[in-house]
Amino acid sequence: MGAPAVRRAEAADAEAIGRLLDAFNREFDEPTPGAAALAERVRTLLPAGELTVLLAGDGPDAVAVLRFRPSLWEEGLDSYLEELYVVPERRGRGLGRAIMEAAIELARVEGAVAMDLGTNETDVAARALYESLGFSHREDGPDGPPNYFYEREL
Amino acid sequence: MGAPAVRRAEAADAEAIGRLLDAFNREFDEPTPGAAALAERVRTLLPAGELTVLLAGDGPDAVAVLRFRPSLWEEGLDSYLEELYVVPERRGRGLGRAIMEAAIELARVEGAVAMDLGTNETDVAARALYESLGFSHREDGPDGPPNYFYEREL
Repeated sequence: MGAPAVRRAEAADAEAIGRLLDAFNREFDEPTPGAAALAERVRTLLPAGELTVLLAGDGPDAVAVLRFRPSLWEEGLDSYLEELYVVPERRGRGLGRAIMEAAIELARVEGAVAMDLGTNETDVAARALYESLGFSHREDGPDGPPNYFYEREL
Repeated sequence: MGAPAVRRAEAADAEAIGRLLDAFNREFDEPTPGAAALAERVRTLLPAGELTVLLAGDGPDAVAVLRFRPSLWEEGLDSYLEELYVVPERRGRGLGRAIMEAAIELARVEGAVAMDLGTNETDVAARALYESLGFSHREDGPDGPPNYFYEREL
């Protein structure tokens, strides 16, 4: 069996994306407006180019949400991996790695020069995946001090 | 003396913004394309609505760079504080706090429902400022595990 197939989502995938994102936040006890409201957001934002979404698996079973913005520091785009989720019953089969590799490749093709993301210390599987793909949360090398992701509601 | 005056930058401020951002990265030994190239980026991105910039002090002596994107999870915008810099000789006079308070107020007026940012563990003054303004890098309360900011070049 080869690597899991990953495809770029279209507006017609909005319902499946809404279902995955809703399941994501329910699993981690984060607030969610519900699958239908999320699908509606995707239906608006995806065609407008505000979101780029990748899907993997037959369910689909995994989703990655990317944002692009023109870089401040150089020509080209910066990319932000806003969400990455694999449904629990499909974990450990390489879906996360496949979708991340596709996200990096897609970002390069779109003209991105960097990718950033926030994740919690306790998300050990995700962190191991990111680190194996060349992401770092440390400055000045592998033993440097960590970069933190801060946020607040307004 | 009241709080330091903060104003929203216009394209005519591009040169000053480029100078501040270049000084920022030189101070922290980060790569920079130089003040002139940064000013040119700002001249392109600011009128296009890709950047929102605040300036404080007469120099100006402080700069904050914000990005806005439509939120995935709810109506409204998410905001990202990409850069915050106060020139060394003007620190400790409330410029950072004044520009951050103005950034939060501006983000609210623009329709943002949240703000996020990345910063290093060693940036203790900036972290104290962010935390005093209600930002957190922890999940599940003040003693929860930290959120990390990961990045890689592409």
